Amino acid sequence: MRSSTRFERDAFGPVEIAADRYWGAQTQRALGVFDIGEERFPSCLIHAFGLQKMAAARANLRCGALDPVLAEPVVAAASELRDGRFDAHFPLTIWQTGSGTQTNMNANEVIANRANEMLGQPLGSKFPVHPNDHVNASQSSNDSFPTVMHLVTVLELEERLKPSLVLLQESLRERANAFANVLKIARTHLMDAVPMTMGQAFDTFARQVAHGFDRIDATMPRLLSLPQGGTAAGTGLNAPPGFDVFFCEEIRALTGRNFSPNPSKFEGMAAHDALVEVSGALNVIATSLIKMANDLRWLGSGPRCGLGELKIPDDGLTSSIMPGKRNPTIAEVLAQACMQVVGNHATITMANASGNFELNVAKPVLIANLLQSIRVLADASRVFAQRLVQDVEVNGAQLARNVENALLLVTALNPILGYDKVAQITAAALEQGVTPRAAALSLGLLDEATYDRVVDARTLAGRPGHRPEGFSERS
Amino acid sequence: MRSSTRFERDAFGPVEIAADRYWGAQTQRALGVFDIGEERFPSCLIHAFGLQKMAAARANLRCGALDPVLAEPVVAAASELRDGRFDAHFPLTIWQTGSGTQTNMNANEVIANRANEMLGQPLGSKFPVHPNDHVNASQSSNDSFPTVMHLVTVLELEERLKPSLVLLQESLRERANAFANVLKIARTHLMDAVPMTMGQAFDTFARQVAHGFDRIDATMPRLLSLPQGGTAAGTGLNAPPGFDVFFCEEIRALTGRNFSPNPSKFEGMAAHDALVEVSGALNVIATSLIKMANDLRWLGSGPRCGLGELKIPDDGLTSSIMPGKRNPTIAEVLAQACMQVVGNHATITMANASGNFELNVAKPVLIANLLQSIRVLADASRVFAQRLVQDVEVNGAQLARNVENALLLVTALNPILGYDKVAQITAAALEQGVTPRAAALSLGLLDEATYDRVVDARTLAGRPGHRPEGFSERS
Amino acid sequence: MRSSTRFERDAFGPVEIAADRYWGAQTQRALGVFDIGEERFPSCLIHAFGLQKMAAARANLRCGALDPVLAEPVVAAASELRDGRFDAHFPLTIWQTGSGTQTNMNANEVIANRANEMLGQPLGSKFPVHPNDHVNASQSSNDSFPTVMHLVTVLELEERLKPSLVLLQESLRERANAFANVLKIARTHLMDAVPMTMGQAFDTFARQVAHGFDRIDATMPRLLSLPQGGTAAGTGLNAPPGFDVFFCEEIRALTGRNFSPNPSKFEGMAAHDALVEVSGALNVIATSLIKMANDLRWLGSGPRCGLGELKIPDDGLTSSIMPGKRNPTIAEVLAQACMQVVGNHATITMANASGNFELNVAKPVLIANLLQSIRVLADASRVFAQRLVQDVEVNGAQLARNVENALLLVTALNPILGYDKVAQITAAALEQGVTPRAAALSLGLLDEATYDRVVDARTLAGRPGHRPEGFSERS
Amino acid sequence: MRSSTRFERDAFGPVEIAADRYWGAQTQRALGVFDIGEERFPSCLIHAFGLQKMAAARANLRCGALDPVLAEPVVAAASELRDGRFDAHFPLTIWQTGSGTQTNMNANEVIANRANEMLGQPLGSKFPVHPNDHVNASQSSNDSFPTVMHLVTVLELEERLKPSLVLLQESLRERANAFANVLKIARTHLMDAVPMTMGQAFDTFARQVAHGFDRIDATMPRLLSLPQGGTAAGTGLNAPPGFDVFFCEEIRALTGRNFSPNPSKFEGMAAHDALVEVSGALNVIATSLIKMANDLRWLGSGPRCGLGELKIPDDGLTSSIMPGKRNPTIAEVLAQACMQVVGNHATITMANASGNFELNVAKPVLIANLLQSIRVLADASRVFAQRLVQDVEVNGAQLARNVENALLLVTALNPILGYDKVAQITAAALEQGVTPRAAALSLGLLDEATYDRVVDARTLAGRPGHRPEGFSERS
Repeated sequence: MRSSTRFERDAFGPVEIAADRYWGAQTQRALGVFDIGEERFPSCLIHAFGLQKMAAARANLRCGALDPVLAEPVVAAASELRDGRFDAHFPLTIWQTGSGTQTNMNANEVIANRANEMLGQPLGSKFPVHPNDHVNASQSSNDSFPTVMHLVTVLELEERLKPSLVLLQESLRERANAFANVLKIARTHLMDAVPMTMGQAFDTFARQVAHGFDRIDATMPRLLSLPQGGTAAGTGLNAPPGFDVFFCEEIRALTGRNFSPNPSKFEGMAAHDALVEVSGALNVIATSLIKMANDLRWLGSGPRCGLGELKIPDDGLTSSIMPGKRNPTIAEVLAQACMQVVGNHATITMANASGNFELNVAKPVLIANLLQSIRVLADASRVFAQRLVQDVEVNGAQLARNVENALLLVTALNPILGYDKVAQITAAALEQGVTPRAAALSLGLLDEATYDRVVDARTLAGRPGHRPEGFSERS
Repeated sequence: MRSSTRFERDAFGPVEIAADRYWGAQTQRALGVFDIGEERFPSCLIHAFGLQKMAAARANLRCGALDPVLAEPVVAAASELRDGRFDAHFPLTIWQTGSGTQTNMNANEVIANRANEMLGQPLGSKFPVHPNDHVNASQSSNDSFPTVMHLVTVLELEERLKPSLVLLQESLRERANAFANVLKIARTHLMDAVPMTMGQAFDTFARQVAHGFDRIDATMPRLLSLPQGGTAAGTGLNAPPGFDVFFCEEIRALTGRNFSPNPSKFEGMAAHDALVEVSGALNVIATSLIKMANDLRWLGSGPRCGLGELKIPDDGLTSSIMPGKRNPTIAEVLAQACMQVVGNHATITMANASGNFELNVAKPVLIANLLQSIRVLADASRVFAQRLVQDVEVNGAQLARNVENALLLVTALNPILGYDKVAQITAAALEQGVTPRAAALSLGLLDEATYDRVVDARTLAGRPGHRPEGFSERS
Repeated sequence: MRSSTRFERDAFGPVEIAADRYWGAQTQRALGVFDIGEERFPSCLIHAFGLQKMAAARANLRCGALDPVLAEPVVAAASELRDGRFDAHFPLTIWQTGSGTQTNMNANEVIANRANEMLGQPLGSKFPVHPNDHVNASQSSNDSFPTVMHLVTVLELEERLKPSLVLLQESLRERANAFANVLKIARTHLMDAVPMTMGQAFDTFARQVAHGFDRIDATMPRLLSLPQGGTAAGTGLNAPPGFDVFFCEEIRALTGRNFSPNPSKFEGMAAHDALVEVSGALNVIATSLIKMANDLRWLGSGPRCGLGELKIPDDGLTSSIMPGKRNPTIAEVLAQACMQVVGNHATITMANASGNFELNVAKPVLIANLLQSIRVLADASRVFAQRLVQDVEVNGAQLARNVENALLLVTALNPILGYDKVAQITAAALEQGVTPRAAALSLGLLDEATYDRVVDARTLAGRPGHRPEGFSERS
Repeated sequence: MRSSTRFERDAFGPVEIAADRYWGAQTQRALGVFDIGEERFPSCLIHAFGLQKMAAARANLRCGALDPVLAEPVVAAASELRDGRFDAHFPLTIWQTGSGTQTNMNANEVIANRANEMLGQPLGSKFPVHPNDHVNASQSSNDSFPTVMHLVTVLELEERLKPSLVLLQESLRERANAFANVLKIARTHLMDAVPMTMGQAFDTFARQVAHGFDRIDATMPRLLSLPQGGTAAGTGLNAPPGFDVFFCEEIRALTGRNFSPNPSKFEGMAAHDALVEVSGALNVIATSLIKMANDLRWLGSGPRCGLGELKIPDDGLTSSIMPGKRNPTIAEVLAQACMQVVGNHATITMANASGNFELNVAKPVLIANLLQSIRVLADASRVFAQRLVQDVEVNGAQLARNVENALLLVTALNPILGYDKVAQITAAALEQGVTPRAAALSLGLLDEATYDRVVDARTLAGRPGHRPEGFSERS
């Protein structure tokens, strides 16, 4: 019967809890206190807590700080947490104490209850496995929560964001190759400039994405450093010697990622500079992608009164009033995701700047924003690659017309005529509404043959050193 | 049977939909396209769509643009939407087209299906009520979505945030009165300054909250202005004359709030300056509340090695490693909520700055951030009032000891001795580790009686014009 | 001889100062300490300090707190400060103590020296006018600096920014009227939508600017409230009764602006919510203007490969390599100024959130950013009005061609044919590359006469309630 | 005579210029157009333009694109620019075209005039050295300005910021060593926690600064990549083959920094991701330093009513009203500088996100903000090291008293007594106002000897793996 309850005790007395819930007294109290918002940690953070508690129990076992009889069910229960079996037993929102203590206690309580259950005890018995003394052994919220913050960030970057960026980069590169010989007019200050290729435009996007990938990697040395073992305030109080090293060995074994102990636990608990740094990398990527999304939707604008140089794939969605209107929805969603990342970066920055002494107490809001940034950037990039970039096509006729009409092809004449005379040609062409070629010839400044030799859009766009060569594919 | 499906058609062909879902073809397509994130609009936005469609149907009826036979079930279905009956039928995340078209279509489709159901037709029939032609009659996503953005923002401010701020202000004022005669040392640059009362400190917080309330109100003239009736791009195409006026009359009747038509529909669709303005007010409030939360947790720091001037109420939560440790959890959660508001403001600002021509296409991310800001600010303020402010107490012994020891009480001697001589007193007191009174007397600069008359902490703190008088309670 | 020096003494001993400089010992010490950056307060802040010291001396005189023999030269010297005579005697950068104490002391010292000079004493005598005892009488940096912050902000808003916004609004409105009958295609999602007029586009900009003006005004009630009289920490210690009231009377007389005493001096010194609020208004205006600047440069893009619907006036500046290339430089500079305002808003927000207890100590960075925001917004808006808006012209041929070709004029047929049939017309027109009229007729869905009656761009754009009527000019 | 003028011509006609100014027609026109603000580029940017023009002239010479007769005086004039001789001849503010064209032209014109002067021609002759054809040969503003942006950023980071950070780190480390055995109470959530050493606190700061150094270095690969050679829009039009390679060789020779050609000129001109990345690193450092500045001023708060654990060195500055009051001015200025960096990062982020197509046109505002960030961070860090950190001392008595009184030393008993029993001790000690030792013994939970063995502050703070060992000094 769902409505039946049980009582659990903590230092403050008994608390009533729904009988089928695995959380305990501190979680239940926190539920009553923090009646704020609806934002919950994404499940990846809960799963990372499973990993963290598994590794801690194994390290405790190796240090002799936890009896094997208790360690085994703790590891088993924690591995269920990691696998998502208890997601529904984390009822708290992110709006809790700044150390994330309530979610750490939630993990301790769920695992203790589940371990005791495995050992034949009813939920709430806290025996033989105690949430603080055993599940949290050699740990504090102060070191466990930031360890999980690093852990989940690395995993989300590696397993969610980077694959999306690789997909996006490959899609862009494939299009860059497909459009390698498609001439287009370059635009600076939004104004018609000189000829280039559409391949060069896509190559530029691809490079920006590749650099974004590198920017994430550049933050890894500090991100792979874990403060576990710092316990209370970074002192390592109650953690046995070597616990931090064993913990990282276990985490490496569990994740295949090269985590190591932060030589200063204090540094990893008092401040989250490493996470602001990652957010800064995401912030750069966000600006890269906003620019790309905007360029693509501008180049696809029209169909008749815009630039019309690209054909954005149809997504089957349309206006609620203008029948048949097609909009660059995917580009808009990517841009919006990036705006979220930029704003989240502001929150994350402020959260880190707010720390005092031995503990930053804006951990929940910081990590929740960072995980959201990773998630939406990853998802939006993937969808952008799959539903826009991979199927985008050029509008050859429009591109050709633009290149032919563009006045500033005559910039190529600078070395022959000098800047001031070339300025006369463009002025004349614009005034008379003729092509630059016609204007140049009518001014008698050079002959047809010279003009056609020097002012060749194809040559101009394809100068050595400016093709996409020298670009090494990410394998 | 849950797994059975039906087919609905739109301009692009048939789409398969779960049989028990009220959404239609465009929503289902969008679900397939926008596989991004997990963030959904809060239910208040869905309910506001119910209000908007009710008012639109009634206005259409009054204009003769909708047959009463159709209008009646549309209104009935929309009122169910408003009441929360169809929250589970809005499956899309906020990561969609920048105009919010998919959520507007979702509302159109749910209402059309439900209205047709009321009229005895199966889901998916689109007859006699058509989602575009009837539910969306005289409307566009371009005007409906921003109308809902204003609508839900006003309702959330009035019904969620302002009551919380009133509660917080009243709690602070009550404590200000209770502490009106409690002397404390003022601190500038974190350094001991001159005496004041704890009542003055809480009065300051109360005033800041009251001003925050005023700041929200100051944005209302522009927020109560609705672009409904602008239809495609602001032109009003296909909206009958007077539709906008009738619509606002209906909305006023439904909400009791003084909405009116924006004289420029273009302005209300192309940009969301009014919402950035509101977010700016929330941003100010966030900075006020961060400062208050910090001051209270600093004054409550200790219990033995901090300032220890306030006793923060116990919340039953504690450290996972340090038994019995009490932390200012509520202050930390308020500060974190405020950091979220500051970051959301950055996203909202960027979203509004990104608009082009007749339509801002960052509407979903903008409104989702704004509603989150309102929600967390409201909830965290309420919890802060209820669980911290209302029960906070002073530590009289610590306060008295500090006032007695503070060196700069002698600032009161400036008018008698001049700045430079008073500087000698403080230097001597600090050097010799004595009270400023002892130092002043030992320097022979004045006699005991004069000192005690001029340097009276109680008088200093309570000078006319500096008590909390002149503060008008918000009724 | 320029290199000669004098010595001045303060509580810490003697300091060597260039003989011809009016500043004193504390300023000179600060110069040695704060060897940071080059940013100085704008002269308007120095001048506002002149006003503040004038009003303080007069209020002291009325309270009997300052001998007329001293008050007179202090007022005279302060009025010279106000008039800009001593700008070169404020050598400190903004990078100083968070209370602005060094700049307040700089003002005290310059005025004392100048007043003593008027009384026949050499610089550095500190007699008979003492910088702390007389110039700073009844004051503290803690109340004087924030008073100046409010003072200079109001003056800069009223005398610099608002006139620029009025000019910009009037220019936009004039162009709106001039283009009232110029048809253009509306664009939503950057895609061709339905017809509107160019006048409506400029009317939208004008309204946004007018609302910006209103947003500034909405912050005034809290901005006109001055903390002068709070002295140390807000307690009013050493300020005679009524000083705050007299001070505000004098300031009103000097400025013609309706300043009044903040009933809580504490509130005005501990936090600068009112200034964050103003910055929030500027932030909204920045987003309005970025959008406007972008719309204008996009509409003027080309000349041959862009939208080309507007002709941006020539400014005589060109590319260093592409001869004769004209760029929308003025629009770019406005957009950049707005980006600065958005970033400054982040600094200002953080500065205000950082306060503790009785004194916010990020005052210099806060006010320097705010004054920069006002200045660049004012200047850039003025230049934008004068050099772009006032002379912008339409490209009639391009506008007409776009309106004729636009597919979605047929949206007007929705009420007659229904959404789904109209979708067939747009699909056919796009596919066959014909006008929507041709497509509609070829599908046999209606006759020519009906089409031409319903689908008339001029009528569509000019529907009642959607012209710029209802817009009240700001007188 | 200063007031005499000369005329220079450009494509738009003659312009009047003060006779003793070295700038030319385009600069003079820009002065008239951009009457906005007072912010000028710092001289380091002007000097970097000198470097860039030197290297370009030499590369042109090597390519045969510039006659030695012209190249020589161009190089000579540019080297004078680099050396600061012409700083006063750059009158424009940063508020100019988004490509920085006016400042590039200013450099071209000054160098051309100076080179012609060297060749015996009057200013304004534009012969034999022409500003566009020769000084700007093989270049565009589009590639030269971003090249200078990278160049000056690298130089400012290497020569200004990194030395300051090294100094700061070394000062912190020195203090960490000096305080290695000074016990202090740790604080988490601002509340008394367990014992640690003051050395550990300073070690943490030192590590953060060292990581900040690493963060800057991590951005270098992308920062050392220069787009010079891209000319118009990235195409390389009119740049001879190999120009980019030669240019970077010359720049490397001139600077000793390892610059290389960006393989995609387009990438380096269309977007400034690399500069946002650097700003992100500065943003992290800013949060580290804000936290450090706050910790130090909090630990030094008092002198009698604060934490009082550190003695902040006296700087000779004091309050204008409270005689002898000492404030942590240096910490406040560092915090303010960091707030500026955070806000600048927002501007820089927005500037980069705003790009379109082949050219980002928010270059001036972007680089001005970035250079300000570097400068104020460098200067404020240096002053903080020199005037605060190097001379900060501990207040031994206060530290010892705090450690003795702190309740949570008993956390060390957890492994012996279990979490729940230890909670009883802390509750009893707090209630009875006794030391935790007294409470533990009175509860009879363990004997004196055990208590004193387990609960030893010195041991607790000094656990292996938690001292500052494992920290490698930056040589």
